[in-house]
Amino acid sequence: MADRYTSTGVFLALEGGEGGGKTTQARLLTDWLAGLGHDVLLTREPGGTPVGTELRRIVLDPATGALSPRTEMLVYAADKAEHVDAVVRPALDAGRVVLTDRYVDSTIAYQGAGRALDPADVEQVARWATAGLRPHLTIVLDVDPRLGLSRAGAPDRIEAEPLEFHERVRAHFLALAGRDPEHYLVVSADDDPQAIHAAIRRAVEPLLAQAVAGARR
Amino acid sequence: MADRYTSTGVFLALEGGEGGGKTTQARLLTDWLAGLGHDVLLTREPGGTPVGTELRRIVLDPATGALSPRTEMLVYAADKAEHVDAVVRPALDAGRVVLTDRYVDSTIAYQGAGRALDPADVEQVARWATAGLRPHLTIVLDVDPRLGLSRAGAPDRIEAEPLEFHERVRAHFLALAGRDPEHYLVVSADDDPQAIHAAIRRAVEPLLAQAVAGARR
Repeated sequence: MADRYTSTGVFLALEGGEGGGKTTQARLLTDWLAGLGHDVLLTREPGGTPVGTELRRIVLDPATGALSPRTEMLVYAADKAEHVDAVVRPALDAGRVVLTDRYVDSTIAYQGAGRALDPADVEQVARWATAGLRPHLTIVLDVDPRLGLSRAGAPDRIEAEPLEFHERVRAHFLALAGRDPEHYLVVSADDDPQAIHAAIRRAVEPLLAQAVAGARR
Repeated sequence: MADRYTSTGVFLALEGGEGGGKTTQARLLTDWLAGLGHDVLLTREPGGTPVGTELRRIVLDPATGALSPRTEMLVYAADKAEHVDAVVRPALDAGRVVLTDRYVDSTIAYQGAGRALDPADVEQVARWATAGLRPHLTIVLDVDPRLGLSRAGAPDRIEAEPLEFHERVRAHFLALAGRDPEHYLVVSADDDPQAIHAAIRRAVEPLLAQAVAGARR
């Protein structure tokens, strides 16, 4: 099932709740990687493809109204399938460093732990959608939802959920990291952005050497 | 997993390839049921809900272009989840007779056997999407794709697939029926429409008695 090392590229995911500074860290990390001479692709879920942009609108637009939890999960899964097939895989096959703002863990945490669905079922569908492709490293920006949500602007359909929802989501991100610590970095979003960036750099650096070695084969 | 008898309604599905006369048979069957005094709901997949209409447009519009097979499957699954949750279940709970033009079998046949996906995986995702809800009777209008496709108008994204695709789809509909003959009626679409309708009536009639008995409990 795990499928991490079949290409010469490096696959990184940024995960965590709203208001944790993912955008800032994504920019710092891609700038640093580009400065080292890596060919970096910054992408995101949902919405990393043309069809994904339409699917993203459907699930996040408050005008969509109520959706069944399974519907919402499957729309996210469809976005994910297209993103991996049309964007992530081709970039990894070309030896690029791919950084995605949200990936499978967000789906498991938000649609599994957050909604009234069995997280194991949600994980199974999300893994099928992505054909089992897992990041070399998942960076979790851990944030207290009370703090994170206060930083967000006008809420979308997900942000508008009550605090308990976001607390279950946070706990599930941490549980996923705890299950596979070798492939996770958890950092507190309360830290100084530059200190967080330095911790991320330290975790990413060894993977880059591995990628270059892979590319030389 | 099977979940057929929890409500007082009757759940019927019409399946089969393009050009098999599903529209004609749906009309004849709903007219007959309404004439008997049943509260009938005729619905369809994809597109039986507002969000389903948007999803249907995405998968069938030739302008969408190439989609990965998993993406296509998951968009159909999302449509299905919403259809069951918002339309089919509430109608069955209200004791209505629900006739759907296409259901899970179409997804398994088109996205599993037709596309390069494992039909067992596709079936698992489709069953999860529909929370295991199965029709009391699935009516398969079996049609030779050479004949059926010649009857269709301008092809949508699915109809434009080559003949071998449609032949695999046909074989899979028949295989699903063969696996569970008690809950299937297979009729040749070559027969006279009134003769097909009579065969469908004979298969549906005993289910109606059961539904009324259920409603009396």
